[in-house]
Amino acid sequence: MTAPLYTPLAQSLPATVPFVGPEAQERARGSAFVARIGANENVFGPSPRALEAMRLALPEVWCYADPESHDLRAALAAHHGVTPEQITVGEGIDGLLGSLVRLLIGPGDAVVTSDGAYPTFNYHVAGFGGELHKVPYTDDAEDPRALFTKARETDAKLVYIANPDNPMGSWIEGADILRAMEDLPEDTLLVLDEAYIECAPEAAALPLPHDDPRVIRMRTFSKAYAMAGQRIGYALGHEDLITAFNKVRNHFGVNRIGQAGALAALQDAEWLAHVIAEIDASRGRIAQIARDNGLEPLPSATNFVAIDCGADGTFAKTVLDGLIRRGIFVRMPFVAPQNRCIRVSCGTQADLDAFAEALPGALAEARG
Amino acid sequence: MTAPLYTPLAQSLPATVPFVGPEAQERARGSAFVARIGANENVFGPSPRALEAMRLALPEVWCYADPESHDLRAALAAHHGVTPEQITVGEGIDGLLGSLVRLLIGPGDAVVTSDGAYPTFNYHVAGFGGELHKVPYTDDAEDPRALFTKARETDAKLVYIANPDNPMGSWIEGADILRAMEDLPEDTLLVLDEAYIECAPEAAALPLPHDDPRVIRMRTFSKAYAMAGQRIGYALGHEDLITAFNKVRNHFGVNRIGQAGALAALQDAEWLAHVIAEIDASRGRIAQIARDNGLEPLPSATNFVAIDCGADGTFAKTVLDGLIRRGIFVRMPFVAPQNRCIRVSCGTQADLDAFAEALPGALAEARG
Repeated sequence: MTAPLYTPLAQSLPATVPFVGPEAQERARGSAFVARIGANENVFGPSPRALEAMRLALPEVWCYADPESHDLRAALAAHHGVTPEQITVGEGIDGLLGSLVRLLIGPGDAVVTSDGAYPTFNYHVAGFGGELHKVPYTDDAEDPRALFTKARETDAKLVYIANPDNPMGSWIEGADILRAMEDLPEDTLLVLDEAYIECAPEAAALPLPHDDPRVIRMRTFSKAYAMAGQRIGYALGHEDLITAFNKVRNHFGVNRIGQAGALAALQDAEWLAHVIAEIDASRGRIAQIARDNGLEPLPSATNFVAIDCGADGTFAKTVLDGLIRRGIFVRMPFVAPQNRCIRVSCGTQADLDAFAEALPGALAEARG
Repeated sequence: MTAPLYTPLAQSLPATVPFVGPEAQERARGSAFVARIGANENVFGPSPRALEAMRLALPEVWCYADPESHDLRAALAAHHGVTPEQITVGEGIDGLLGSLVRLLIGPGDAVVTSDGAYPTFNYHVAGFGGELHKVPYTDDAEDPRALFTKARETDAKLVYIANPDNPMGSWIEGADILRAMEDLPEDTLLVLDEAYIECAPEAAALPLPHDDPRVIRMRTFSKAYAMAGQRIGYALGHEDLITAFNKVRNHFGVNRIGQAGALAALQDAEWLAHVIAEIDASRGRIAQIARDNGLEPLPSATNFVAIDCGADGTFAKTVLDGLIRRGIFVRMPFVAPQNRCIRVSCGTQADLDAFAEALPGALAEARG
């Protein structure tokens, strides 16, 4: 096959992996990580009820899953006080962002996000030929007013906000987003990535009905529900927009075991509360380890903590490399000045013991 | 959000579900099917080793899967005698077809397939604005010479062949495809959907190296390996083309439990042989049931049998409706003259007993 067979857009794209997985890093190092606290996974694990539901569903793995995710959508609808028609389930938020961008963005269409925000969203925008406009974080947080102003300036069709934010862990009040929305152009859709919302204060919630046509909210079972490996995300929005996903989505793409697990996980509020408490304690310990080493932990409404290493991105990268060399898998923000930080996911006592043990050496090397 | 926010292409698409799942039909009927033999699922189940591997992987479900599917690709490479760079893993063949079409097909680009072939492929082509050109089946089988001639006439970028074919169950010799490829234009890619190849005679295999740049082959763990619920498909092709999938795919979209299960399933050749024998026996029984009712079973190289009901599509549809009313989930081809058939997937003894019991009544109704 000759190269010109690709579409012009496909030809223009790099072959890329938005994130290199820890497994690839382990293969490169030739040994396993001691602590896997870099991908904001939830080591506290899913509800035992979810695990049991998945175990019981295994013998049915010869069956395709229900392409309508009927039972899960019904349960989510009851959970959120919406109708099933206001919910679509997809292969993680990543998959849903891809479908959303595909529905809205063609070559040259403007999209707004924060500089340093979720790279996989940017990957999808580039993948459909959209033009990204970025605004800086304000005080290490998303700045809705700046984002919506930029959307107005660029005639953007889509603007992305993560609340709470990844990679900084910061959160903003839903009421502040709503106030800023007065400036959101009528033809601009706000995609609100709420992957970490279960870890955040209630005031983070956007005080608007879930079917408000100006917003689509993305949720996931990968974070607080600890089922990242199953790829179950969902979007909440206006019925018309949600229905439009049926034009482009991979209808049979959501796996059967994951649907069963998510359904059970959703019904175990007690386990979720337990996990949130574990996350809170773990955030406290990460912050303490940072302070013990003379570093500044940033407040977090997520299951990770960004730690300000007190210098520039080169310094933080050296600290990060030192940690990785010592078997501690962590990641860091991509752009200045946020890249003065490393990002440490909540872990078990053993994970954080290993982090506490490795950090002084990594810091000494970076300083030396 | 106002409607014009969608891309013109997205606006032009219908919100659709290529296949209505059996679960949706069960909800509509208000009762479960007695026999689930309509979606070419494999009721004989996955290797016990695969089930055990998935069970053991469940506690790791809090981890994202390796986005490179390294271990599975390495095993598949060894299995097929290729390199891992010639393999990409995706969310079923459906997901891979979507990525392939996205890489190659833009608005107005010509694509060739058989009339009545896989609707989900057509869905993807329409979804990226491609223009479908169809040729009829010849003797209920794909006709590579006619397909490639049409590709030449239409300057097609992509031509689809399923071998063995779904929905007819027929197969053609790989050597015949190769001979016909003399007419395949140099800038046309052949996508060879080999979802059912494990059920077919060896002569179905295309006698060309897997990295021949004119072909990409699609394989799946959904059929002979009985893991439809896990969504694990893969494509074999030239390294350049396979690498291009990294431009558009959902990198973290392939679930972790499924990767573990597929790896184990691949290594259990004995179970695969057992399943193929079960499928063969089941095909024989379906054929016998057809003959017992005065109907003609078509030869099958898949895990289903198309049964010629001896009249037109309206008649076959009436038979199908009668079966569904009697709790037998089956499907049928979409276009004439193939829609004179119903399509019955291999099932357990109990499934086929139920089918045998229901068919005379459904036929009598259709005739009366």
